[in-house]
Amino acid sequence: MPAYKAPLRDMQFVLHEVLNAEQHYQAIGAEDASRDMVDAIMGEAAKFCEEVLAPLNQVGDQQGCQWNDGVVTTPEGFKEAYQQWVENGWPSLAQPAEFGGQGLPDSIGILVSEMVSTANWAWGMYPGLSHGAMNTIELHGTDEQKEVYLTKLVSGEWTGTMCLTEPHCGSDLGTLKSKAEENGDGSYAISGTKIFISSGEHDMAENIVHIVLARLPGAPEGTKGISLFIVPKFLPDGTRNDLQCGSIEHKMGIHGNATCVMNFDKAKGFLIGPPNQGLKCMFTFMNFARLGTAMQGVASAELSFQGALAYARERLAMRSLTGPKAPEKPADPIIVHPDVRRMLLTQKAFAEGGRAMMMHASMLVDQVKYSDDEALKKESDDLLSFLTPIAKAFLTEVGTEAANHGVQVFGGHGYIQEWGMEQIVRDNRIAQLYEGTTGIQALDLLGRKVLMSQGEMLKNFTKIVHKFCKANEDNASMKSLVTPLAKVNKEWGELTMQLGMKAMQNREEVGGAAVDYLMYSGYITLGYYWAQMAEKAQAALDAGAADADFYKAKIKTANFYMQRILPRTESHKLAMLNGVDSLMDLDEAHFAF
Amino acid sequence: MPAYKAPLRDMQFVLHEVLNAEQHYQAIGAEDASRDMVDAIMGEAAKFCEEVLAPLNQVGDQQGCQWNDGVVTTPEGFKEAYQQWVENGWPSLAQPAEFGGQGLPDSIGILVSEMVSTANWAWGMYPGLSHGAMNTIELHGTDEQKEVYLTKLVSGEWTGTMCLTEPHCGSDLGTLKSKAEENGDGSYAISGTKIFISSGEHDMAENIVHIVLARLPGAPEGTKGISLFIVPKFLPDGTRNDLQCGSIEHKMGIHGNATCVMNFDKAKGFLIGPPNQGLKCMFTFMNFARLGTAMQGVASAELSFQGALAYARERLAMRSLTGPKAPEKPADPIIVHPDVRRMLLTQKAFAEGGRAMMMHASMLVDQVKYSDDEALKKESDDLLSFLTPIAKAFLTEVGTEAANHGVQVFGGHGYIQEWGMEQIVRDNRIAQLYEGTTGIQALDLLGRKVLMSQGEMLKNFTKIVHKFCKANEDNASMKSLVTPLAKVNKEWGELTMQLGMKAMQNREEVGGAAVDYLMYSGYITLGYYWAQMAEKAQAALDAGAADADFYKAKIKTANFYMQRILPRTESHKLAMLNGVDSLMDLDEAHFAF
Repeated sequence: MPAYKAPLRDMQFVLHEVLNAEQHYQAIGAEDASRDMVDAIMGEAAKFCEEVLAPLNQVGDQQGCQWNDGVVTTPEGFKEAYQQWVENGWPSLAQPAEFGGQGLPDSIGILVSEMVSTANWAWGMYPGLSHGAMNTIELHGTDEQKEVYLTKLVSGEWTGTMCLTEPHCGSDLGTLKSKAEENGDGSYAISGTKIFISSGEHDMAENIVHIVLARLPGAPEGTKGISLFIVPKFLPDGTRNDLQCGSIEHKMGIHGNATCVMNFDKAKGFLIGPPNQGLKCMFTFMNFARLGTAMQGVASAELSFQGALAYARERLAMRSLTGPKAPEKPADPIIVHPDVRRMLLTQKAFAEGGRAMMMHASMLVDQVKYSDDEALKKESDDLLSFLTPIAKAFLTEVGTEAANHGVQVFGGHGYIQEWGMEQIVRDNRIAQLYEGTTGIQALDLLGRKVLMSQGEMLKNFTKIVHKFCKANEDNASMKSLVTPLAKVNKEWGELTMQLGMKAMQNREEVGGAAVDYLMYSGYITLGYYWAQMAEKAQAALDAGAADADFYKAKIKTANFYMQRILPRTESHKLAMLNGVDSLMDLDEAHFAF
Repeated sequence: MPAYKAPLRDMQFVLHEVLNAEQHYQAIGAEDASRDMVDAIMGEAAKFCEEVLAPLNQVGDQQGCQWNDGVVTTPEGFKEAYQQWVENGWPSLAQPAEFGGQGLPDSIGILVSEMVSTANWAWGMYPGLSHGAMNTIELHGTDEQKEVYLTKLVSGEWTGTMCLTEPHCGSDLGTLKSKAEENGDGSYAISGTKIFISSGEHDMAENIVHIVLARLPGAPEGTKGISLFIVPKFLPDGTRNDLQCGSIEHKMGIHGNATCVMNFDKAKGFLIGPPNQGLKCMFTFMNFARLGTAMQGVASAELSFQGALAYARERLAMRSLTGPKAPEKPADPIIVHPDVRRMLLTQKAFAEGGRAMMMHASMLVDQVKYSDDEALKKESDDLLSFLTPIAKAFLTEVGTEAANHGVQVFGGHGYIQEWGMEQIVRDNRIAQLYEGTTGIQALDLLGRKVLMSQGEMLKNFTKIVHKFCKANEDNASMKSLVTPLAKVNKEWGELTMQLGMKAMQNREEVGGAAVDYLMYSGYITLGYYWAQMAEKAQAALDAGAADADFYKAKIKTANFYMQRILPRTESHKLAMLNGVDSLMDLDEAHFAF
């Protein structure tokens, strides 16, 4: 496994120089979050992730979780790492002080989660799922529920899960069958089978709080008849509840995380939020989970990049086409070869650009939650809604691409488990599937967000990009970056209008264009973050900053992005403009003979 | 694992209707290969692959190979399947009658190999490696070597391997260290460590014939000092040779094939071919292996397509945007959704288009080997040289894409081992690495083939495509297909000229453009095969063919390809034209901080 080193310099750059974190924290009333404090937290988190979690990443993959008659044992060291995590107070970092939290803004939690995710994604899913459960209870729970469950989740003594999927339905929750019957004492008897429950059962914490979707008696059919319940493994009085982990899945990757079949057999549950409003309430959880999953793409790109870069500097093969670069060695290190550089730079562009996108999104989360400025709150909420499907689907898609480049840089060695590069591909592959597949995110973006808002949500964003490009068009050092960006940003609006018009003729056009549209939008969005980073880097250079090489590297990577990655938009555009007919023409019966 | 069903109808279409196989076999003097005979062989092979090999595919992945003190045990059933394979005479199918073979042309062997590859790639690598060894001995061996080794390989009693890679070198064989010392009796003592030796040790055959690259004493440095040796596990007199399988690799996939570290400790070897010409001789083996690997991409696309199609027809989720398609069910089968169709059609386009490309290439192999027409022989050889890197790299890249679509169509279930879809992704991932990575193939195509021939090799192919498009431009039913194809085909030549000019200024441009060039070339090449298939399908329809649905599906899929896949060329072109500077600008030390 590549040794993980937290990219603190880059994180500081994004936080402080690109996103003005200190000013942001002041504005939302989180005065505690001074630069020194944030840097200190990052330093501590980096240490924990590098020293405790990263060494368990490959072990977790190789050992996996073991199921034995409903009891799940996590890989060697996972439990101890979790104990340390709890002892160090990490679960409470961005949780409300009222329930034992440290009251820091969400973005600080997300900052830490990048490091956890990169060091050991499978492990990070245990506290990760808890986080979503905490948000749901905080927003929708009663005071008593908060007192009983939230405090234990905040302390990390208990963990949480999210029980949505059933054997016959995942994306289409309207057909969900689990049911809740009244016990007569205000509680409910929950029955049904849930599958793909991450962290559903394990040996790391003393109790597990399941957030479960089920139907009340006589509830309307479809998505409007679903309610949300808290169903703990152990009831507050210590009784074991009637729920069991029936088995765990054998998966392509994330072996260290237990993916459980959960059987609820009249398990005692407590309604959370209003009846039949479960799906709405669940979206709190889901939106957070989507951002969390987006992070997996960034984490995979970063870890794979670190591994590939180290290897490309050491591995010798052939000579540079322009003459030996290491004449004293039998061959040159492969980093001299343009195609190896292309792969490394692609990984770097996705990792660092993705980081900037995620950190910006996390500050929008803060603003939505803490800002007193209602207009800003609305604006941030809209922008976050727009960015979430892009972050989730685009970053996980390019995360898989980056991880595959990492394997490719290693040549045949990349295919061998020992080196750890192929594990990243396997681990990240789930990110394109869970919390809404790429296809579902794409429909959310193009259908629900962009077209249903009559293009308003897109316009909000393209305006920001336009303004940025405009402001930099006369800046000699930025011109080559903002010119291609401004061009595609303009096209984005025009293309969307065309698609909107096509969709009025034929609703299938939305589905036919959605994934291309999502990727197209992702490349432009990432281009905007790269342009911003280049602008700040140039400003630092102009101001005579000490570590000039760091800033120059940023500008050069931004340039690579505009030259070699951004042109990918063109093919997506052409495919979309060619429409949906060629997808729908073939009769279902004639796909194969 | 998806149940494999050999796509016999499609194979027959490609063979007989698109490529006029019967005429081809007549022309090369293989009169035995009548349509009836070829169809009968395909039918028998299909039966064996569907009934014997396919059921072992998942078992092979789950059990893997076991190493115990130099002895390797293959997964349950592998050995028995190999015995049946030998008893049925399959190893001898396309081997010379002189050494016990059935004397059929190579293309018939490749036809069978598609089915073996799709049913169980890991198993197929055992006989697959033998095939390459046979070709090498047939072409470069002495009469005695042929008598001793070739007959046993042809009968299948023995298997073969290809020992090139060493721990420090794979692509860069010039730095190879294994050495050969004269024993004084005409034989050599071979010493060295070889890694990544597929089928290097196993329990399926009584002897293994290793074809090993090593250096003679005093041989020149680099690639010009490498010789080729036959080093059998058991010497012809039955003595165990001094070579051992030191360990087997734990890999991302192809678990059923033993990837061995082979230690040669003064093992007795026999020079094959002239001294210091080993690499040249090895290319016989390698070219064949490259086509064989190209087949893995087609096989992965086909198997994944079969699995995804069956699932998409059964799995219910949501309603079609244009109204319920299966109102009697709780939701529509997901094949109604445009994005699911996009993924299925992409898989189908790669599988069937790739099949046509491979079958055409296999007939070129026949022509090079058997034609009496020297001009045709040369022409076919040039075309095959041009197509080989495209087939190897492009088809394996899109094979991985197709396999990933298969996982995606399954949603979360695609990530679970039980369904077998993720195995295809893991198995196929090696195809982009071994027998020359995508990057190496790309340099071969753009550098060695296209630019070194002053564009001649490209022109030979674009002329064929141009002629085809020209001949069909007034054909109303073909116009929409040949118009976009003719456009990119023309651009291909222009782009190549531009790249050639850039390369004269800066040699790095070749490396910087190579992989984009390869993918660009691949999409156009595949487009040509799709256009040909559509032309033949239209002709069949015009002639009132019975199974009209089959032919219509071909035309619709060709249309999908031109509309939705071919536009990918555009982004690759733009990236290439933006040049190599952005790849080379960043100092090696500044990739990370």
